[in-house]
Amino acid sequence: MVLIEFSMFPLDKGESLSPYVARILDIIDKSGVNYRLNPMGTVLEGDYDEVMGVVRQCFKALEKDCRRISMTLKMDYRKSNESRLEKKIQKVESILKRELKK
Amino acid sequence: MVLIEFSMFPLDKGESLSPYVARILDIIDKSGVNYRLNPMGTVLEGDYDEVMGVVRQCFKALEKDCRRISMTLKMDYRKSNESRLEKKIQKVESILKRELKK
Amino acid sequence: MVLIEFSMFPLDKGESLSPYVARILDIIDKSGVNYRLNPMGTVLEGDYDEVMGVVRQCFKALEKDCRRISMTLKMDYRKSNESRLEKKIQKVESILKRELKK
Amino acid sequence: MVLIEFSMFPLDKGESLSPYVARILDIIDKSGVNYRLNPMGTVLEGDYDEVMGVVRQCFKALEKDCRRISMTLKMDYRKSNESRLEKKIQKVESILKRELKK
Repeated sequence: MVLIEFSMFPLDKGESLSPYVARILDIIDKSGVNYRLNPMGTVLEGDYDEVMGVVRQCFKALEKDCRRISMTLKMDYRKSNESRLEKKIQKVESILKRELKK
Repeated sequence: MVLIEFSMFPLDKGESLSPYVARILDIIDKSGVNYRLNPMGTVLEGDYDEVMGVVRQCFKALEKDCRRISMTLKMDYRKSNESRLEKKIQKVESILKRELKK
Repeated sequence: MVLIEFSMFPLDKGESLSPYVARILDIIDKSGVNYRLNPMGTVLEGDYDEVMGVVRQCFKALEKDCRRISMTLKMDYRKSNESRLEKKIQKVESILKRELKK
Repeated sequence: MVLIEFSMFPLDKGESLSPYVARILDIIDKSGVNYRLNPMGTVLEGDYDEVMGVVRQCFKALEKDCRRISMTLKMDYRKSNESRLEKKIQKVESILKRELKK
Protein backbone atom coordinates (compact mmCIF):
# COMPACT_ATOMS: atom_id res chain seq x y z
CA MET A 1 0.00 0.00 0.00
CA VAL A 2 1.30 3.43 -0.97
CA LEU A 3 0.93 6.79 0.73
CA ILE A 4 1.88 9.74 -1.45
CA GLU A 5 1.76 13.46 -0.76
CA PHE A 6 1.86 15.81 -3.75
CA SER A 7 1.26 19.39 -4.74
CA MET A 8 1.01 20.67 -8.33
CA PHE A 9 0.54 24.22 -9.61
CA PRO A 10 1.15 26.38 -12.70
CA LEU A 11 4.06 28.83 -12.88
CA ASP A 12 2.56 31.00 -15.62
CA LYS A 13 -0.64 32.16 -13.90
CA GLY A 14 0.67 34.56 -11.27
CA GLU A 15 0.77 34.47 -7.51
CA SER A 16 -2.76 33.27 -6.69
CA LEU A 17 -3.01 29.54 -7.34
CA SER A 18 -6.26 28.52 -5.61
CA PRO A 19 -8.35 28.21 -8.82
CA TYR A 20 -5.86 25.62 -10.11
CA VAL A 21 -5.51 23.86 -6.76
CA ALA A 22 -9.33 23.68 -6.67
CA ARG A 23 -9.34 22.10 -10.17
CA ILE A 24 -7.01 19.39 -8.86
CA LEU A 25 -8.87 18.83 -5.58
CA ASP A 26 -12.11 18.43 -7.54
CA ILE A 27 -10.48 15.52 -9.41
CA ILE A 28 -9.01 13.97 -6.25
CA ASP A 29 -12.25 14.33 -4.29
CA LYS A 30 -14.25 12.63 -7.07
CA SER A 31 -11.64 9.91 -7.75
CA GLY A 32 -12.77 7.61 -4.97
CA VAL A 33 -9.19 7.35 -3.68
CA ASN A 34 -8.86 8.01 0.05
CA TYR A 35 -7.13 11.39 0.69
CA ARG A 36 -6.42 14.12 3.22
CA LEU A 37 -5.84 17.76 2.20
CA ASN A 38 -3.35 19.86 4.17
CA PRO A 39 -2.06 23.44 3.69
CA MET A 40 0.97 22.27 1.65
CA GLY A 41 -0.37 19.34 -0.37
CA THR A 42 -2.69 16.36 -0.49
CA VAL A 43 -2.01 12.88 0.89
CA LEU A 44 -3.47 9.98 -1.12
CA GLU A 45 -3.53 6.33 -0.13
CA GLY A 46 -4.00 3.27 -2.32
CA ASP A 47 -2.23 0.96 -4.69
CA TYR A 48 0.64 2.51 -6.72
CA ASP A 49 -1.16 2.60 -10.07
CA GLU A 50 -4.36 3.87 -8.47
CA VAL A 51 -2.82 6.92 -6.77
CA MET A 52 -0.37 7.69 -9.59
CA GLY A 53 -3.32 7.50 -11.99
CA VAL A 54 -5.01 10.30 -10.06
CA VAL A 55 -1.78 12.35 -10.17
CA ARG A 56 -1.71 11.86 -13.95
CA GLN A 57 -5.33 13.05 -14.27
CA CYS A 58 -4.44 16.18 -12.28
CA PHE A 59 -1.47 16.88 -14.57
CA LYS A 60 -3.59 16.40 -17.69
CA ALA A 61 -6.20 18.80 -16.25
CA LEU A 62 -3.60 21.58 -15.87
CA GLU A 63 -1.72 20.78 -19.07
CA LYS A 64 -4.71 21.99 -21.12
CA ASP A 65 -4.19 25.65 -20.35
CA CYS A 66 -0.96 26.01 -18.37
CA ARG A 67 2.41 26.60 -20.10
CA ARG A 68 4.59 25.67 -17.11
CA ILE A 69 3.66 23.31 -14.23
CA SER A 70 5.60 22.43 -11.09
CA MET A 71 4.96 19.32 -8.97
CA THR A 72 6.54 17.85 -5.86
CA LEU A 73 5.63 14.37 -4.73
CA LYS A 74 6.86 12.04 -1.99
CA MET A 75 5.92 8.41 -1.52
CA ASP A 76 5.98 6.02 1.46
CA TYR A 77 5.36 2.43 0.33
CA ARG A 78 4.86 -0.31 2.87
CA LYS A 79 4.33 -4.02 2.16
CA SER A 80 0.90 -4.35 3.87
CA ASN A 81 -2.73 -3.71 2.99
CA GLU A 82 -3.41 -1.86 6.20
CA SER A 83 -4.47 1.76 5.91
CA ARG A 84 -2.01 4.17 7.54
CA LEU A 85 -3.80 7.47 6.89
CA GLU A 86 -4.78 7.58 10.58
CA LYS A 87 -2.47 4.90 12.05
CA LYS A 88 0.84 6.72 11.40
CA ILE A 89 -0.36 9.69 13.48
CA GLN A 90 -2.04 7.57 16.18
CA LYS A 91 1.22 5.67 16.72
CA VAL A 92 3.17 8.90 17.30
CA GLU A 93 0.47 10.24 19.64
CA SER A 94 0.49 6.98 21.63
CA ILE A 95 4.29 7.22 22.05
CA LEU A 96 3.99 10.86 23.23
CA LYS A 97 0.87 10.05 25.27
CA ARG A 98 -0.85 13.21 24.05
CA GLU A 99 -2.86 14.53 21.12
CA LEU A 100 -1.01 16.61 18.49
CA LYS A 101 -2.33 19.37 16.25
CA LYS A 102 -3.71 17.86 13.08
CA MET B 1 5.21 34.63 6.41
CA VAL B 2 6.49 31.15 5.59
CA LEU B 3 4.69 27.81 5.45
CA ILE B 4 6.97 24.78 5.35
CA GLU B 5 6.19 21.10 5.31
CA PHE B 6 8.96 18.71 6.26
CA SER B 7 9.61 15.11 7.23
CA MET B 8 12.86 13.77 8.69
CA PHE B 9 13.80 10.21 9.64
CA PRO B 10 16.86 7.96 10.16
CA LEU B 11 17.94 5.43 7.53
CA ASP B 12 19.95 3.25 9.91
CA LYS B 13 17.24 2.22 12.35
CA GLY B 14 15.14 -0.16 10.26
CA GLU B 15 11.62 -0.02 8.92
CA SER B 16 9.71 1.30 11.94
CA LEU B 17 10.34 5.02 12.32
CA SER B 18 7.64 6.19 14.76
CA PRO B 19 9.97 6.48 17.81
CA TYR B 20 12.10 8.97 15.86
CA VAL B 21 9.10 10.79 14.36
CA ALA B 22 7.73 11.07 17.93
CA ARG B 23 11.06 12.59 19.09
CA ILE B 24 10.68 15.25 16.40
CA LEU B 25 6.99 15.94 17.04
CA ASP B 26 7.75 16.39 20.73
CA ILE B 27 10.14 19.22 19.79
CA ILE B 28 7.71 20.78 17.28
CA ASP B 29 4.76 20.55 19.69
CA LYS B 30 6.77 22.26 22.50
CA SER B 31 8.34 24.90 20.20
CA GLY B 32 5.40 27.28 20.28
CA VAL B 33 5.41 27.46 16.46
CA ASN B 34 2.00 26.86 14.90
CA TYR B 35 1.88 23.46 13.14
CA ARG B 36 -0.33 20.75 11.67
CA LEU B 37 0.71 17.08 11.53
CA ASN B 38 -0.35 14.93 8.56
CA PRO B 39 0.43 11.31 7.61
CA MET B 40 3.39 12.35 5.41
CA GLY B 41 4.95 15.28 7.30
CA THR B 42 4.35 18.33 9.44
CA VAL B 43 3.38 21.81 8.28
CA LEU B 44 4.85 24.71 10.29
CA GLU B 45 3.99 28.40 9.93
CA GLY B 46 5.98 31.41 11.04
CA ASP B 47 8.87 33.65 10.12
CA TYR B 48 11.70 31.97 8.16
CA ASP B 49 14.25 31.87 10.97
CA GLU B 50 11.65 30.70 13.49
CA VAL B 51 10.47 27.66 11.51
CA MET B 52 13.94 26.74 10.18
CA GLY B 53 15.21 26.99 13.77
CA VAL B 54 12.75 24.26 14.75
CA VAL B 55 13.88 22.12 11.79
CA ARG B 56 17.46 22.54 13.00
CA GLN B 57 16.52 21.45 16.52
CA CYS B 58 14.86 18.33 15.08
CA PHE B 59 18.01 17.51 13.08
CA LYS B 60 20.24 17.99 16.12
CA ALA B 61 17.94 15.68 18.14
CA LEU B 62 18.38 12.84 15.61
CA GLU B 63 22.05 13.54 14.91
CA LYS B 64 22.92 12.38 18.44
CA ASP B 65 22.29 8.70 17.75
CA CYS B 66 21.49 8.29 14.05
CA ARG B 67 24.23 7.60 11.49
CA ARG B 68 22.18 8.51 8.39
CA ILE B 69 19.22 10.93 8.25
CA SER B 70 16.95 11.82 5.35
CA MET B 71 14.83 14.98 5.18
CA THR B 72 12.48 16.49 2.61
CA LEU B 73 11.20 20.00 3.01
CA LYS B 74 9.10 22.35 0.90
CA MET B 75 8.43 26.01 1.55
CA ASP B 76 5.72 28.45 0.43
CA TYR B 77 6.66 32.04 1.36
CA ARG B 78 4.17 34.86 0.90
CA LYS B 79 4.79 38.56 1.56
CA SER B 80 2.03 39.02 4.19
CA ASN B 81 1.61 38.47 7.91
CA GLU B 82 -1.70 36.71 7.52
CA SER B 83 -1.86 33.09 8.69
CA ARG B 84 -2.63 30.64 5.87
CA LEU B 85 -2.72 27.38 7.84
CA GLU B 86 -6.52 27.38 7.51
CA LYS B 87 -7.06 30.02 4.79
CA LYS B 88 -5.39 28.09 1.95
CA ILE B 89 -7.83 25.20 2.42
CA GLN B 90 -10.86 27.43 3.05
CA LYS B 91 -10.24 29.25 -0.24
CA VAL B 92 -10.21 25.98 -2.22
CA GLU B 93 -13.35 24.76 -0.45
CA SER B 94 -15.14 28.06 -1.20
CA ILE B 95 -14.26 27.71 -4.91
CA LEU B 96 -15.55 24.11 -4.96
CA LYS B 97 -18.51 25.05 -2.72
CA ARG B 98 -18.03 21.92 -0.65
CA GLU B 99 -15.98 20.61 2.27
CA LEU B 100 -12.97 18.44 1.46
CA LYS B 101 -11.37 15.64 3.53
CA LYS B 102 -8.79 17.15 5.87
CA MET C 1 8.12 18.21 -22.35
CA VAL C 2 8.71 17.16 -18.75
CA LEU C 3 11.84 17.27 -16.61
CA ILE C 4 11.62 15.22 -13.41
CA GLU C 5 14.17 14.59 -10.73
CA PHE C 6 13.60 11.62 -8.41
CA SER C 7 15.32 9.45 -5.87
CA MET C 8 13.96 6.15 -4.51
CA PHE C 9 15.42 3.83 -1.86
CA PRO C 10 14.36 1.14 0.63
CA LEU C 11 14.02 1.89 4.35
CA ASP C 12 14.35 -1.72 5.51
CA LYS C 13 17.84 -2.53 4.17
CA GLY C 14 20.06 -0.47 6.46
CA GLU C 15 22.31 2.52 5.92
CA SER C 16 24.08 1.54 2.69
CA LEU C 17 21.75 2.01 -0.26
CA SER C 18 24.05 1.86 -3.31
CA PRO C 19 23.05 -1.72 -4.37
CA TYR C 20 19.42 -0.55 -4.65
CA VAL C 21 20.32 2.77 -6.30
CA ALA C 22 22.40 0.76 -8.80
CA ARG C 23 19.36 -1.48 -9.52
CA ILE C 24 17.36 1.64 -10.37
CA LEU C 25 20.09 3.31 -12.43
CA ASP C 26 20.45 0.10 -14.45
CA ILE C 27 16.78 0.43 -15.43
CA ILE C 28 17.03 4.17 -16.18
CA ASP C 29 20.26 3.77 -18.18
CA LYS C 30 18.69 1.01 -20.32
CA SER C 31 15.32 2.76 -20.71
CA GLY C 32 16.37 4.95 -23.60
CA VAL C 33 15.03 8.03 -21.79
CA ASN C 34 17.52 10.92 -21.61
CA TYR C 35 18.85 11.36 -18.04
CA ARG C 36 21.54 12.89 -15.85
CA LEU C 37 22.62 11.35 -12.53
CA ASN C 38 23.63 13.63 -9.65
CA PRO C 39 24.63 12.89 -6.02
CA MET C 40 21.04 13.36 -4.75
CA GLY C 41 18.89 11.93 -7.55
CA THR C 42 18.42 11.45 -11.27
CA VAL C 43 16.94 13.93 -13.74
CA LEU C 44 14.92 12.41 -16.60
CA GLU C 45 13.51 14.26 -19.63
CA GLY C 46 10.71 13.21 -21.94
CA ASP C 47 6.98 13.08 -22.28
CA TYR C 48 5.01 12.62 -19.03
CA ASP C 49 3.99 9.00 -19.57
CA GLU C 50 7.45 8.06 -20.79
CA VAL C 51 9.35 9.33 -17.73
CA MET C 52 6.70 8.27 -15.21
CA GLY C 53 6.73 4.84 -16.84
CA VAL C 54 10.44 4.54 -15.99
CA VAL C 55 9.72 5.65 -12.40
CA ARG C 56 7.08 2.92 -12.18
CA GLN C 57 9.55 0.29 -13.45
CA CYS C 58 12.04 1.38 -10.77
CA PHE C 59 9.36 1.06 -8.05
CA LYS C 60 8.34 -2.39 -9.28
CA ALA C 61 12.03 -3.47 -9.25
CA LEU C 62 12.37 -2.53 -5.55
CA GLU C 63 8.90 -3.71 -4.54
CA LYS C 64 9.99 -7.33 -5.18
CA ASP C 65 12.20 -7.55 -2.12
CA CYS C 66 11.86 -4.32 -0.14
CA ARG C 67 9.23 -3.95 2.63
CA ARG C 68 9.33 -0.14 2.84
CA ILE C 69 10.32 2.27 0.03
CA SER C 70 10.69 6.05 0.09
CA MET C 71 10.61 8.26 -3.03
CA THR C 72 10.82 11.99 -3.64
CA LEU C 73 10.07 13.39 -7.06
CA LYS C 74 9.80 16.89 -8.50
CA MET C 75 8.58 17.82 -11.96
CA ASP C 76 9.04 20.88 -14.21
CA TYR C 77 6.68 20.73 -17.21
CA ARG C 78 7.01 23.24 -20.01
CA LYS C 79 4.77 23.50 -23.11
CA SER C 80 7.57 23.03 -25.70
CA ASN C 81 9.38 20.11 -27.34
CA GLU C 82 12.77 21.68 -26.80
CA SER C 83 15.20 19.75 -24.58
CA ARG C 84 16.19 21.67 -21.46
CA LEU C 85 18.63 19.17 -19.90
CA GLU C 86 21.51 21.46 -20.98
CA LYS C 87 19.64 24.69 -21.82
CA LYS C 88 18.43 25.49 -18.30
CA ILE C 89 22.02 25.53 -17.04
CA GLN C 90 23.43 27.33 -20.11
CA LYS C 91 20.90 30.14 -19.65
CA VAL C 92 21.97 30.72 -16.03
CA GLU C 93 25.66 30.62 -17.00
CA SER C 94 25.06 33.14 -19.81
CA ILE C 95 23.34 35.51 -17.35
CA LEU C 96 26.24 35.17 -14.89
CA LYS C 97 28.80 35.25 -17.73
CA ARG C 98 30.78 32.41 -16.17
CA GLU C 99 30.81 28.62 -15.95
CA LEU C 100 29.35 26.99 -12.85
CA LYS C 101 30.25 23.69 -11.19
CA LYS C 102 28.20 20.90 -12.76
CA MET D 1 28.51 15.75 6.72
CA VAL D 2 25.36 16.86 4.93
CA LEU D 3 24.40 16.71 1.26
CA ILE D 4 21.38 18.82 0.35
CA GLU D 5 19.72 19.45 -2.97
CA PHE D 6 17.43 22.46 -3.27
CA SER D 7 15.67 24.65 -5.80
CA MET D 8 14.03 28.00 -5.04
CA PHE D 9 12.10 30.32 -7.35
CA PRO D 10 9.46 33.10 -7.26
CA LEU D 11 5.83 32.43 -8.18
CA ASP D 12 4.95 36.04 -8.97
CA LYS D 13 7.40 36.72 -11.81
CA GLY D 14 5.94 34.66 -14.65
CA GLU D 15 7.14 31.60 -16.50
CA SER D 16 10.80 32.48 -17.09
CA LEU D 17 12.78 32.01 -13.89
CA SER D 18 16.42 32.06 -15.02
CA PRO D 19 17.19 35.62 -13.79
CA TYR D 20 16.19 34.54 -10.26
CA VAL D 21 17.95 31.18 -10.50
CA ALA D 22 21.06 33.09 -11.65
CA ARG D 23 20.77 35.40 -8.60
CA ILE D 24 20.81 32.31 -6.35
CA LEU D 25 23.64 30.53 -8.20
CA ASP D 26 25.75 33.69 -7.94
CA ILE D 27 25.41 33.43 -4.12
CA ILE D 28 26.10 29.67 -4.04
CA ASP D 29 29.10 29.96 -6.39
CA LYS D 30 30.66 32.74 -4.25
CA SER D 31 29.84 31.06 -0.89
CA GLY D 32 32.86 28.78 -0.88
CA VAL D 33 30.61 25.77 -0.18
CA ASN D 34 31.20 22.83 -2.51
CA TYR D 35 28.27 22.42 -4.96
CA ARG D 36 27.08 20.86 -8.21
CA LEU D 37 24.36 22.43 -10.37
CA ASN D 38 21.91 20.18 -12.26
CA PRO D 39 18.86 20.96 -14.44
CA MET D 40 16.45 20.60 -11.49
CA GLY D 41 18.39 22.04 -8.54
CA THR D 42 21.76 22.45 -6.87
CA VAL D 43 23.52 19.98 -4.60
CA LEU D 44 25.56 21.48 -1.75
CA GLU D 45 27.89 19.63 0.63
CA GLY D 46 29.16 20.71 4.03
CA ASP D 47 28.22 20.95 7.66
CA TYR D 48 24.51 21.50 8.41
CA ASP D 49 24.76 25.13 9.48
CA GLU D 50 27.10 25.96 6.62
CA VAL D 51 24.85 24.70 3.82
CA MET D 52 21.61 25.86 5.44
CA GLY D 53 23.23 29.27 5.90
CA VAL D 54 23.69 29.49 2.12
CA VAL D 55 20.04 28.46 1.59
CA ARG D 56 19.03 31.27 3.95
CA GLN D 57 21.13 33.81 2.00
CA CYS D 58 19.40 32.70 -1.21
CA PHE D 59 15.97 33.15 0.39
CA LYS D 60 16.86 36.60 1.70
CA ALA D 61 18.10 37.56 -1.81
CA LEU D 62 14.70 36.70 -3.36
CA GLU D 63 12.61 38.00 -0.46
CA LYS D 64 13.68 41.58 -1.34
CA ASP D 65 11.55 41.79 -4.48
CA CYS D 66 9.48 38.61 -4.74
CA ARG D 67 5.98 38.37 -3.23
CA ARG D 68 5.72 34.56 -3.30
CA ILE D 69 8.62 32.06 -3.23
CA SER D 70 8.61 28.27 -3.54
CA MET D 71 11.44 26.01 -2.36
CA THR D 72 11.99 22.27 -2.28
CA LEU D 73 14.93 20.81 -0.39
CA LYS D 74 16.10 17.31 0.43
CA MET D 75 18.92 16.35 2.76
CA ASP D 76 21.11 13.24 3.13
CA TYR D 77 23.16 13.39 6.36
CA ARG D 78 25.83 10.81 7.05
CA LYS D 79 27.96 10.56 10.21
CA SER D 80 31.35 10.93 8.46
CA ASN D 81 33.59 13.76 7.25
CA GLU D 82 34.18 12.11 3.90
CA SER D 83 33.00 14.00 0.81
CA ARG D 84 30.33 12.10 -1.12
CA LEU D 85 29.74 14.57 -3.99
CA GLU D 86 31.65 12.20 -6.29
CA LYS D 87 31.76 9.00 -4.17
CA LYS D 88 28.00 8.29 -4.22
CA ILE D 89 28.02 8.18 -8.04
CA GLN D 90 31.34 6.29 -8.28
CA LYS D 91 29.97 3.56 -5.99
CA VAL D 92 26.92 3.02 -8.22
CA GLU D 93 29.08 3.01 -11.36
CA SER D 94 31.44 0.44 -9.79
CA ILE D 95 28.47 -1.83 -8.99
CA LEU D 96 27.15 -1.51 -12.55
CA LYS D 97 30.69 -1.69 -13.96
CA ARG D 98 29.96 1.10 -16.40
CA GLU D 99 29.86 4.89 -16.60
CA LEU D 100 26.50 6.59 -16.31
CA LYS D 101 25.33 9.91 -17.77
CA LYS D 102 26.18 12.72 -15.38
